[in-house]
This record gives sequence, C-alpha cells and structure tokens, in this order.
Amino acid sequence: MNQKTMMTDLYELTMAQTYFQDGKKDEIVYFDSFFRSIPNQGGYALMGGNEEIVEYIKNFHFTAEDIEYLRSTNLFTEEFLSYLKDLKFTGDIYMVPTGTPVFPNEPIVTVRAKTIEAQIIETALLSYLNAGIKFTTCARKLKESALEIPIMEFGARRADGPDAAVMASKYAYIAGCSGTSNVYAGKKYQIPVMGTMAHSFITDYEDEYEAFLAYAKMYPENSVFLVDTYNTLKSGVPNAIRVAKDYLIPNGYRLKGIRIDSGDLAYETKMARKMLDEAGMQDATICISNGLTAKTINSLKEQGACFDSIGAGDNITAPNIRIGCVYKLAGLEENNKIIPKIKISNDKIKTTNPGYKKVYRFYDKETGYALGDVITVHHEKLPMDEYTLIDPENRHNQKTIRNYEIRELQELVFQNGVFVGPQMSIENLRNHCEIEMNRLYPEIKREEMPHQYYVDLSEELYALKEELLAYYSQEERGKVYAKRKENRTFKNS
Amino acid sequence: MNQKTMMTDLYELTMAQTYFQDGKKDEIVYFDSFFRSIPNQGGYALMGGNEEIVEYIKNFHFTAEDIEYLRSTNLFTEEFLSYLKDLKFTGDIYMVPTGTPVFPNEPIVTVRAKTIEAQIIETALLSYLNAGIKFTTCARKLKESALEIPIMEFGARRADGPDAAVMASKYAYIAGCSGTSNVYAGKKYQIPVMGTMAHSFITDYEDEYEAFLAYAKMYPENSVFLVDTYNTLKSGVPNAIRVAKDYLIPNGYRLKGIRIDSGDLAYETKMARKMLDEAGMQDATICISNGLTAKTINSLKEQGACFDSIGAGDNITAPNIRIGCVYKLAGLEENNKIIPKIKISNDKIKTTNPGYKKVYRFYDKETGYALGDVITVHHEKLPMDEYTLIDPENRHNQKTIRNYEIRELQELVFQNGVFVGPQMSIENLRNHCEIEMNRLYPEIKREEMPHQYYVDLSEELYALKEELLAYYSQEERGKVYAKRKENRTFKNS
Repeated sequence: MNQKTMMTDLYELTMAQTYFQDGKKDEIVYFDSFFRSIPNQGGYALMGGNEEIVEYIKNFHFTAEDIEYLRSTNLFTEEFLSYLKDLKFTGDIYMVPTGTPVFPNEPIVTVRAKTIEAQIIETALLSYLNAGIKFTTCARKLKESALEIPIMEFGARRADGPDAAVMASKYAYIAGCSGTSNVYAGKKYQIPVMGTMAHSFITDYEDEYEAFLAYAKMYPENSVFLVDTYNTLKSGVPNAIRVAKDYLIPNGYRLKGIRIDSGDLAYETKMARKMLDEAGMQDATICISNGLTAKTINSLKEQGACFDSIGAGDNITAPNIRIGCVYKLAGLEENNKIIPKIKISNDKIKTTNPGYKKVYRFYDKETGYALGDVITVHHEKLPMDEYTLIDPENRHNQKTIRNYEIRELQELVFQNGVFVGPQMSIENLRNHCEIEMNRLYPEIKREEMPHQYYVDLSEELYALKEELLAYYSQEERGKVYAKRKENRTFKNS
Repeated sequence: MNQKTMMTDLYELTMAQTYFQDGKKDEIVYFDSFFRSIPNQGGYALMGGNEEIVEYIKNFHFTAEDIEYLRSTNLFTEEFLSYLKDLKFTGDIYMVPTGTPVFPNEPIVTVRAKTIEAQIIETALLSYLNAGIKFTTCARKLKESALEIPIMEFGARRADGPDAAVMASKYAYIAGCSGTSNVYAGKKYQIPVMGTMAHSFITDYEDEYEAFLAYAKMYPENSVFLVDTYNTLKSGVPNAIRVAKDYLIPNGYRLKGIRIDSGDLAYETKMARKMLDEAGMQDATICISNGLTAKTINSLKEQGACFDSIGAGDNITAPNIRIGCVYKLAGLEENNKIIPKIKISNDKIKTTNPGYKKVYRFYDKETGYALGDVITVHHEKLPMDEYTLIDPENRHNQKTIRNYEIRELQELVFQNGVFVGPQMSIENLRNHCEIEMNRLYPEIKREEMPHQYYVDLSEELYALKEELLAYYSQEERGKVYAKRKENRTFKNS
C-alpha cells in the first residue's frame, strides 16, 4: 500500500537523529512548501500531487526491514532506531486543493509537526508536489489553447516509469483532458480510456487498406484510422474513405475519423478535411498529434487547420520544464510562542518568507475574477472593504481594490496525524479546476507574455521579514548569539 | 512484485483484439526500439532501463481484477478476455546492456514475439527505456565534466514520484556517481548513501554556530556543514572554522568539510578555500551544489573554483530533456521467411529501418577506441579486414577502417519468454559503463559541439530500405495491393 517512507534523503535522518539527541524531538516546527518561479515565464501553475501526499502520510512508517537497513549504515544509535520503528506522522498539514491556480512564493503546503516527522517527510512530499504540479499545469496549458477541442492524454510511454505515467494521466484529466490512453490509470481512477491505432498495426498488414478494413470490422462504431504511415494525403486518407465506402457505410456505419501524427498539420488537415467532405463524410473527425505544444495548437488554429481532437503526450508527461518546489522552515514553537525563521541567501530569490502564514485570494464580487493573493502572518485579519495590494519586489507597484470577497487558499488535510481533508472525487477536482481557471483573468492565462498575477505580502509579514533580514545582516553573528537569545521575540511570536 | 501489465495504452489492447480476431495471434513479429536524436545536440546517450524491463516482462500477466476492468469498457469479447487472462510473454528480447553508449536510430531493444505480446508490452517498455536512458545519460554528462571529482546524486525531491527517484539513483550510480541521498535506493540496490544537512537544520537552531556544534557532537567524524544559510563568507565559513576549533580539534577530530549551495560558486569557493587553509584546515573539503550542469562545472573549473565534490539533483533526475524512444514494427515471419516492414513519413526522420537487424560496434584494435557502429540485416557477416563506413544521411561522407575488432551490441535477454540474460550486479554495470565510456573518443564526449559518432547502415540494409521506399512510393497503393501480394519477397526474407 504505497509504503514509501524510505523515500527520503539520508540527511533527513541524520538531522533527525541530531534533533533526537539534542532533546528537540518534540519541538513543534512549521515548514512551508512553495516554488520560486513558474517555468517558461508562464502566468500560472496548478496545484497537484495532493492525493499522493495524503496516501504517503497515511502509510508513513518504517518497517523492521527498513530499520535493519538503517542499522547497517552504522550512522544511527539503537535508541534512535527504536524511536524510528514506532514513528508515525502526528502533525497537521494544510494544502491548497488540487487543481487550484497557484503562484510563486505562496505556501502551497504548510506542515506543523514535531521536528523529526516534519523533516523526514520532506523528500517524498516535494517529489509528489513537483510531479503533480508539473503534470496538471502542463496539461492545462494545452487545454487553454485547445479550448473546446478535446485532448486525449497519451504520454505513458514518455513517463519516468509507470507510477509517473499514472500520476500524469490523473492530473491531466483533472486539468481538463478528456481521457487517457493509459489503461492502468483508467482502472485505478475510472478515467475514460481511449485510443486509436499505432503505425505498427498498419505495417503489420499487407496494406493500409487491409489494416483499416480489419479494424473497421472489429470496431465498426469506433473506426478512427491513423493515416500517415505511408503518405497521408495520397494513401492514408483515400484508404480511409475507401474502407468507409466499401465496408462501413454498406453495413450501416459511418467513418468515425482519422488521426494524423506527422507532417505539416495545418496543410494536411485542411486537405484531409476537403477530401473527407467531398466524399460526403463531413461528420468524420480529424485527430492530430505529434509533440503538440500550446504554441503549436495556437498557431495551427491561426492557420485554419481543421481538427476536432488532439492527442498529447510529450508536453504533459515529459515536458521540458521543472517545478522547483522547496520546503523551508518557517518557524518553531517555544513556550507557546511561534519563533519565526528565515533562510537568507546571496541569491535574493532564495530568501524565504518567515513565520506561520496564511494565503488569501481576493475575488471581485461582481465579475468573480481573482484579483490577487495576499500572504499574511497566521493571525492577521484582512479588511473587508478596501485593500491595497503591494508588490513586495517593487513597493511602488500598488493597486487598491474594493468590493471583493476573500477565500483562504489552504485547507486543513491532516490534524494530529489524522486525515480530515475533504474526500474529493476525480470528477469534483476536475470541476474545481475548471471553475478556478475560469476565475483567472485571460491576461494571466495567455500563452505569450502573460500578465503577472499579484502576490502580495501583508504589511505585517513584510515588516517581520524586514526585521529578520536586518537582524541577521549584523556581522559576526557567531560572537553575539548568546546575547541574542535574550531578545529574539519577533512580531510573529 | 512490480506487476505493471496494465500500464499499457488502450490501443495496444484494441489492436491486439483485432489481431486475435483476424487469426494473427500466433504471427511472429519483430519490433525495434530506438531513439531518433540525442537531446541538446549531445554526442552520446547511455543505455538504461533494462533491469526494470526485465522485471516487467517476468511479471507480465493480467489479474482477474484487470480482466474485470477491461470487460467493463465494453470493448472486448469474452473470447479475447479469456485469451488475455492466460497471456504470458513467450518471445525473445535482445537488448544493448545498461551503461553502453548508444546512438540515434540503432535498435537498442529488439523484440521477437507473437504479435499480441509484442504489441502490449510497448508502452511500459518505452517508459522504462526513456527514463533509464535519460537518467544514465544525464548523470554521465555531469561525470564527464567533473572527472575525478565525486558526484553525489540527490535529486529524489525533483523526481516524478518515488519510483522515478529510485530509478534515477540507480542509473546515476551506474553512470559513475559516487552515491545517492536516496535511502530507498540505498536499501534496494546497496548503493552508498550520503548527505550533509539542510538549511532547515541551521534555522531550527538559535544560531548557525549552535547548529554546527550540535551536528559536530553527533557526527564528529562526518562534520560537513552547510554554510550558506545566512551569509557564506561572513557567517557560514567562520562558524564552521570556529566549531572545528572549539569542539572538533580539541576532541581529536578534523573539520570534514563545508557545502555551498548558492551564490557565485567560483568566487565563494576560492575565498572559502583561502579561509579554511589559513585556519590550518587544508584537509577540509568543499562540496558545491545548486542546479549544476556539465557546462557550469566546466566553467567553474576554468575559473579556478575550489571544490572537492559535487551534489547534483536537478540535472540528473529532472533534466529538461526528453529521450524520444519509439518502438516500430520491423518485420514479421511468414512461411519461415522474414517479411521486412517499414514506416514511411513525410518527416524523413520518422522513416524506419526495415527488417530484422543486428548492430555491431567496431573498435580500433590498437587504441581500443570505438570507430563506429553498423546496423546490418540480421544474417550479414561483416568483413574482418577492411570496412567502409558510409553515412546514410550523406553517402559522400565515408571512412575506411582497418585493424578493428567487432562486437555485437545487443545481448539475448529473454528466449521463449525465459530470462537468459546475464545477471550483472550494479557494481559490474558501473564498471561496464566506465570501460565503454573510456572507449569513446573524447571528441564524441565533448560537452560543446561534439563530433558525431558514425552510425552506418550496411550496404545490404541500405539497399533493402531503398527498395521498400521505392516500392511504397508508388501512388495509389490501395488499388494495387492485391498484385503486390504475389511478389513481396524482399532481400531480407
């Protein structure tokens, strides 16, 4: 049952042992997961990976065999191994729901847990998150270009193994694809499965005509022929029409469609459409595939290409992008106070937002559009009448909004280690994604040079961050750390 | 036990049913797997994914639950479902061994099997192959730049889920990495596990000094401190030195090293080296990380950056590349003859090499270097004294070689469904990879604009391909297919 607890970096365990040794094992910490930028200057990303994280957390435990292996590394004490043997996840996890648009630097997952538990889950949590967000976002980008034209996800063969393939199929469906070719995913998640035929099927037969005919006899109601094995316009389309006339129509069926997987898809689909129409097969559909991207789909549409459905694999399952989600300590509890923590870096983008935080999304009450997000210190109340969004990277970039409603983005999914999250079906997640995407301004969703969505730090959070930055920029910290102990109570406490 | 038989595209099953219905279920076919180009104009790729394919084939079967699901799609007859229920893989599979350099258009896996079996395994086979080749190749590219400097793979958090992470760890090790952070992979494959500490460990403590001190007390022999949490040169390195002086040295230990994960790694490593040396810690090592690529490593070396080890994740586990392995029908048996098959496309690169083939690598007897590969028709014997390599894309590009030895690249791994392949340990595969990489000319391995390795088609294979191309370029094939039946015996038969 998905027992992947050992999928963790060694340092999580060696750090954990140090916490254990140092009496820090029951210390409560806060970790945030977020990404720092959207690949390829994209305007949005979509949350994903939640369901796999939930399964992982539910099954979190080390087996006797795991402990035996860890013992063999000679890095761990018996006392610590004994502690690990009985370890369960007992903390709280907040997550933005699957299929929700998310933006850089927002905490999309927040973990509040004992330090050892919070630390060990980092690796698997990030892996699922990075994969889930990638698949969901990439599928949606195609969908935003395709619009009403259905997309079949068929990228399994390009996935980093079967488990990745199944994740990709699921998140592609949630993002708006119509179905998958992946039978495993179809069975596991009850996603519609679909498919046409491969070139090998055509070449296995004497002749293209013969192959189409055999397929038509087997699936007379579902005869979609792949027409580019030899020559799309000179051989494939004529043979499809011939089989329709020779077999399908005389037997009371229609040619369902053709698929073109190579060549110039604008020219060939227009010519194929003309040939099908002239043969009286206006209802036969044209499916296109061949490494299609959102840009290619836009460009084909502009050129008047004729297509009714899209097969997509590469750019959902194996896109050339990487979501760099990270997992950073934001705070810890001491005497019932939260001590905010920050990670500073010479690379400014790597400096974190400190403290236990919340994220809120503002929606325009009239249009329903999302106006911007605000990251706040956890206890803050936001005004309900008027709010000024301020770009934390450029404080002069401000926008005052009114007549809005506010929604907290994260949901509580685990409480004291118990799953309390909503049980959303795949269909419900798909609907949720559709609704939330429709609430983003088209300018944010544009494929080329999208407008940047507002993600603001509240004034209180901004002040806290500045305070910590100023504090840690003192030189020779090592010498004065004793002194600091006395007065390290920050505003977030 | 890795039962992933349902990880197949629906069309594999619908085509299979058509073969079944058409009396083709016992027809013996030949499929080749190959890729068409090396991403990013790379000079070579490395074989990978073999072990996962072997496991998959050994466990190939549909469960009762799988059959139930397939029945629910209403696409399959009871007769076919009953056939699937008892289906095992009974064919032969040839593969190039893991860790061998491979090049575009070479058949790296060849399957000879009953048509239905050969068809259904396509999806999972390609997925494992694409992932395995990607991980192995990308890890080796870093290794070729790092040379004797050890690389630790720590990309698990960037993987498309835990299974992909484990594959990446394994193939990275085979490609020459020194170990992995991934405990799951360490346990599963007995790969050395290693690690340092995370920024969260530092920020969890009052102070960087205190964090280093706690770690030093726990792991005095293995104290590698992450020094870039606040400020590498002003805080991190001084605190590392201080902890060494305050605790490690007085207790008979040495500072093992530091890790720098951000900032300008050339400048910071040089300054850190100077500080460590001046403190008498010439033996303390410097580890660098932060999305390093082969190019960055080369550039850091050119600038005299001081580093003793590398941590790499992104560009092994989640590189922005895609290996586009495909699986194409190359021939089928009829009356004990092999009928060669070709897939032609308007995209020239998508036209396949027909027939049952072999791949041979020529090595210079004196230097040991690989001179080029030749793809032949299966029964061909190559001359042992002199051979002229001819570039199939540019026939004027020729090179005559002498004094060589020839090795067949593929090995028989399954025979009549039984695993007969060599049982190579991970260590042996790693040695094999090292040896084979050392037999490639440095010009082929160069990161920038590498020389293109020769992959030739034998004259007999070239002639066969031309013959089939000429044959299929006849117009209006549909009309003449009956005639063709009579004389479709090609040279490969």
